[in-house]
Order: sequence, then C-alpha cells, then structure tokens
Amino acid sequence: MRNIKLTLSYDGSDFSGWQTQPRFRTVQETVEAAIHALTGERVNANASGRTDTGVHAVGQVANFYTQSQHSTEVLVRALNAHLPDDVVVRQAADMPEAFDANRDARRKLYRYVIHDGPVPDPFLRHYCHQSRHPLDAAVMSAAAKPHLSLNRVGEWIWIDVEADGFLYNMVRAIAGTLIDVGRGYRSASQIAEILEAEDRRQAGPTAPAQGLFLMRVTY
Amino acid sequence: MRNIKLTLSYDGSDFSGWQTQPRFRTVQETVEAAIHALTGERVNANASGRTDTGVHAVGQVANFYTQSQHSTEVLVRALNAHLPDDVVVRQAADMPEAFDANRDARRKLYRYVIHDGPVPDPFLRHYCHQSRHPLDAAVMSAAAKPHLSLNRVGEWIWIDVEADGFLYNMVRAIAGTLIDVGRGYRSASQIAEILEAEDRRQAGPTAPAQGLFLMRVTY
Repeated sequence: MRNIKLTLSYDGSDFSGWQTQPRFRTVQETVEAAIHALTGERVNANASGRTDTGVHAVGQVANFYTQSQHSTEVLVRALNAHLPDDVVVRQAADMPEAFDANRDARRKLYRYVIHDGPVPDPFLRHYCHQSRHPLDAAVMSAAAKPHLSLNRVGEWIWIDVEADGFLYNMVRAIAGTLIDVGRGYRSASQIAEILEAEDRRQAGPTAPAQGLFLMRVTY
Repeated sequence: MRNIKLTLSYDGSDFSGWQTQPRFRTVQETVEAAIHALTGERVNANASGRTDTGVHAVGQVANFYTQSQHSTEVLVRALNAHLPDDVVVRQAADMPEAFDANRDARRKLYRYVIHDGPVPDPFLRHYCHQSRHPLDAAVMSAAAKPHLSLNRVGEWIWIDVEADGFLYNMVRAIAGTLIDVGRGYRSASQIAEILEAEDRRQAGPTAPAQGLFLMRVTY
C-alpha cells in the first residue's frame, strides 16, 4: 500500500469543519469522496487535526493509504478535477508507510486576520474579522510580543501563532482577547495569564472563525 | 436639494448586476433601500453605468438627490450600517446640482483578472477567471499592447482597459479573445480587428463575469 500525503487549501465558509459528521458538509468527507471517485477506494483521510466550522486552511495536511498507481502529479490533477472549487489539493507526496499526518505533526502555524478600517472590504469579508472599533495595534503587539507575532500593514492586522498543540479554540480566544486589548478593554498582562493558565475562562470573547487560517503544518 | 456622489465597492457574485429588475437582487435596489432606511426618501441612485450580473466593482460611482442634513462622513457610516456586507460605500461627496454620474463620466477603467496556474486558488475563485489551459502572457501582451495593458505577476494575469465608452460585454469579449490568443487558438492580429470593427461577432468566447472589475470612473 502507498501512503500519500496531501497538502490542501480550503475556503472554510461553506464547510462544517474538517471532520466527517452525518448530515453536514465537511472537508474530510469531500476529500474522501474525490479519492473514491478517482480510485474506487473507501479511504480515511487522516488530517493533522480537525479545523472548526468556518475556519480556512492554506496548508492543511492529511494522509491516506491507496493501491492506486497514479503518479503524484496525476493524483493532484485528477483529485482537483473531482473536488468542488472551495477545496484544492496543492501537493501530493509518497511517504513511508508509518507516516501519520496527525500523530507526526510537530508544529502548526495559525494566522488570525483582522481588518481594522472605517469601511469594510466586500471582497475579503469571508476571510477576515472586521473590527467594529479602531484598534491600537502597537498596544496589541506589545501584549503579544513575548508569546506570538502580530503585524500591521495599513488597515490589516494579522496574528501568527505557531505551537506544537492547540487547545480547543485557543487561537480564536487569543485573537478575541488581543482585540479587547487593542480597543482598550483589557490590559496587556491578561494575555500572559491566559496563555500560562491555558484557561479560556479568563479570555475575551472568541473571535469569529472566518478570520482564522491554518497556514502550515511542520513534520 | 443636495446632490450626493457615492463611490461604491461591491462583490457582484450574489447580485443580478447594478440595475433594478423586478424579482432580482440588484445593487441599485440595495443601495436605494439603504438610503431609504436612513433618510425615509425614495431616491434614484444614478450610476456611471450598469454592471452586469456577477461583475464586481471597486469604484462604481452613483449620485442621488436628498434633503438629508447628515454630513458626508455620517452618510458613509450610516449607509454602511444599513447595507449588506457585499456592498460598501467608500466615499460620499457633495456635488453641484447639475452633476450626473452617468452623463458626466469621462473614462472608465475595467480590469479583467485571470488565474493561470496548475492549482486553482480556493480563496479567489469568485474574483478571477481560472484558466484551464496554460497561457502565454508574452504573446497576449504583444497582442494587447497597442490597445490596452496586460500584466503578469506569477500565476496572475490582469488586463486593464480604460475608455470613454464600452459596448455591451466588450471587456469580457476582449478578455476571452486574449485568452484564446494566449493558448494559441487565435492570432494576435485578431484583437485589432475586433477593436477596430467594434464587432463582437469576430471575438472569442465572452470571458466569465466573475473576473471583471469596474475599478474607477473619471469625471
């Protein structure tokens, strides 16, 4: 059996997250259906981790076992021909049989994107959180600095968090708390408390899913 | 009466174009409804020109007459609060009573965006035409050069056309013809024939609406 590693991008807007659930449209089920259409095989697409409803991925990774003899180039092209246009296979690679996209993931990089401007951007409305209040990115950056990276270019702010594991909704809790810091509702020191306590009860409101991207997984 | 000039951006994906039509969701009707919700007035939002179903605008311009006493800053904020998130007022300005956004438009800049890469981009799928065949942008650029501008950066190609008037679907016909030139189906000289004849029957297939943006209107 071959063990294929896929690198996937998807627009999470119309998916109920990665993991298969009866009666919901999920990325896992969609990818497995494309593999089935191509190979006739019922496989398990084993991702680095689930992503929640509405969360996007630039570089999700999943592996599956197959007896297909297609080259990896053909696999990319043929799977994309079977996939709907909100999920795309960027790369396919043959891996040793023991490779497990979930268990072997060493680090994941998440990015949270905020638009902070007086006028929303209609083209990026599904791919960011539109702040309703002006944000002080310098204060947010100072609060973030020991733990994670925050950048601002023009009206765009993004928070990059890379770690070996993530508690449920942790990145969105961090983003929501930093937004509170940026509008003057919380002090910068609370970020450290939340991260050190790993206690979401102390965090600000969870920022919306549509601003969150799984950027890459490192093995 | 005040005469207000609005600069508008909209994602055309879910609109049946600019112009009001019974039983269709249009940008004009949506903007007029927001003005009504704010001012209580039934106005005519008079655009520089209609845009077709699915066509986007970065800088559409429209004017309307009102007795509202709101400052232009308040108009922008309040209209955006009443508008759905796929249409946005970027600017509002008081104009002389004679200003007519349609009649006084001197030039319009349209941009047609093509993605030419082996793997589609799921985040920009509504905002470009995904070419199914590799395109030779140098040949396209040579064909375009005397008439209009064509640029390529990485997998992205865009065609800018600025003119004082546009025949129906002209920009999409030009884009469709240039795509045919880029994949070797047509000779470069046919672009000149189409533009000079202003005859769409000689043009290639009309490129899809989702790649077209009305960028700006000059008065």
